[in-house]
Amino acid sequence: MTRNEGQPDILVTLTGVAADSASKPSAALSDPTRLLLHPLDVGITRGDGIFEAIGVNGGHPLELEAHLERLQRSARMLDLPPLRLDAIDAGVRLAIEQHTSVPELLVKVFVTRGPEASGEPTAWIHASEGPDYSRARSEGIAAVTLNRGYPRDIALTAPWLLQGAKTLSYAVNRSALREAALRGAQDAIFLSTDGFVLEGPASTVILRDARGFRTPPPEDGVLPGTTQVRIFRELEAQGFATVTEHIREEELRAAAAVWLVSSGRLVVPVRILDGAAVPLDCKVTDMMLDILTSVTNS
Amino acid sequence: MTRNEGQPDILVTLTGVAADSASKPSAALSDPTRLLLHPLDVGITRGDGIFEAIGVNGGHPLELEAHLERLQRSARMLDLPPLRLDAIDAGVRLAIEQHTSVPELLVKVFVTRGPEASGEPTAWIHASEGPDYSRARSEGIAAVTLNRGYPRDIALTAPWLLQGAKTLSYAVNRSALREAALRGAQDAIFLSTDGFVLEGPASTVILRDARGFRTPPPEDGVLPGTTQVRIFRELEAQGFATVTEHIREEELRAAAAVWLVSSGRLVVPVRILDGAAVPLDCKVTDMMLDILTSVTNS
Repeated sequence: MTRNEGQPDILVTLTGVAADSASKPSAALSDPTRLLLHPLDVGITRGDGIFEAIGVNGGHPLELEAHLERLQRSARMLDLPPLRLDAIDAGVRLAIEQHTSVPELLVKVFVTRGPEASGEPTAWIHASEGPDYSRARSEGIAAVTLNRGYPRDIALTAPWLLQGAKTLSYAVNRSALREAALRGAQDAIFLSTDGFVLEGPASTVILRDARGFRTPPPEDGVLPGTTQVRIFRELEAQGFATVTEHIREEELRAAAAVWLVSSGRLVVPVRILDGAAVPLDCKVTDMMLDILTSVTNS
Repeated sequence: MTRNEGQPDILVTLTGVAADSASKPSAALSDPTRLLLHPLDVGITRGDGIFEAIGVNGGHPLELEAHLERLQRSARMLDLPPLRLDAIDAGVRLAIEQHTSVPELLVKVFVTRGPEASGEPTAWIHASEGPDYSRARSEGIAAVTLNRGYPRDIALTAPWLLQGAKTLSYAVNRSALREAALRGAQDAIFLSTDGFVLEGPASTVILRDARGFRTPPPEDGVLPGTTQVRIFRELEAQGFATVTEHIREEELRAAAAVWLVSSGRLVVPVRILDGAAVPLDCKVTDMMLDILTSVTNS
């Protein structure tokens, strides 16, 4: 992953994002090279916080409302105070407006529980031009399946494990990507211990088979995918069948095509899975990319 | 948990802690209220880093060498560069020396992978006087068992899940403590899906039964406990039987006594487990506390 040079990142710091905060919400443009967090902020010391990454295409944020709702859902799962989403929305729009116009921008929103015992979340927004994913999008990538260690029903039986929340505790997700690289692949697909397809470390899985376009449901302990939801909505409008229901490992291996979708890379087809070739469906990949980059956004 | 006021925290920032670092290792005293991390440091954005918490009793760090070795082990598990432990050791001693003399100090060492693509870890040390644990130590606490979601052999079968590494991705550990609080308890003991005792969110479990003093082994995906190892070493020297071997849930519930041990709280007996009374063995608790607070440290 190489960063584009020359287009400076934008940093927006937010105050008063908690609904119960004493201070008024405000967003301030800040120096992106400045130091940011207090050493006792539990966002650092405990990975105790949440985030969202919003793709911005030609200045238009993709599914911003869905991202902010998911941020609120993560806040609830971590027992953080309810967030003032309008203030965060304004911060995201400020970051987009301040960044040089680029075809693809990635805007990340971070909220931590704040410095120990402060009760006041720390929040900021970081906007940067993403790497060039065009080759991965057209040629596809190699992925490996990795055991996530949990049974499929873990989010229902043990909610304290926070499966399905988008937390700052992402060390396992990074570790899975290193394991994939060791196996000669660029990405991973997590499986449950009972043989069901979950998600990528930073993406949602979509496959196509005789039943239509399929993805696992949030009840399976996966992050509800904002990019996936938008794609399914448009596919349905175009008359395609979509199924949000659990997927067995063997169904993944037998699929007519497999994609990993996310806010940054948008849509990347899986070309090789655990060393075996997976058919590419370039027409559908392009259709999905069109869905995501069309200007009629919410 | 209330913090003692009046004894200012000490912050030491470290540079050049990676063995392959271009810069010489150095430790600098820093303002503990200053902002510390770059917004793109993956220690914040991904919980991608490691830490250790070292108890300091009357100025003597407990098992410092074991803590530093465990930090190196965590670094290896996360594929971080090897660390210059001598530089970190010097930083820890500087922090202790600079802090006002107090009976119990907690020194935390943090190492992140650093700002994205920098390849240079960020490292710092934070020393603060701990809360007063005397009541928990003498009266014991209520704990609940919580499903950790993983089978006992997860560290061996899926090392990318980082079980047994002390990472900054501790959101689940904090969430487990909130779940315990909801159930009217002060702490939790994780169980594997196949019914074995693992560890607390921030402690090692020791129990006593007919076989002696027992604790689960690191192969069960638990953090190798520095405090537990010291206690076992001294108990063995005093002629007690110690067993580091897996423990079944029923053995925990039938134990003659149960303790949670860690660098900060040292030794806390479990008085109530899932609502059922557990016998207290105050004599042994005191013996363990004596072991940890005797001055003859490594």
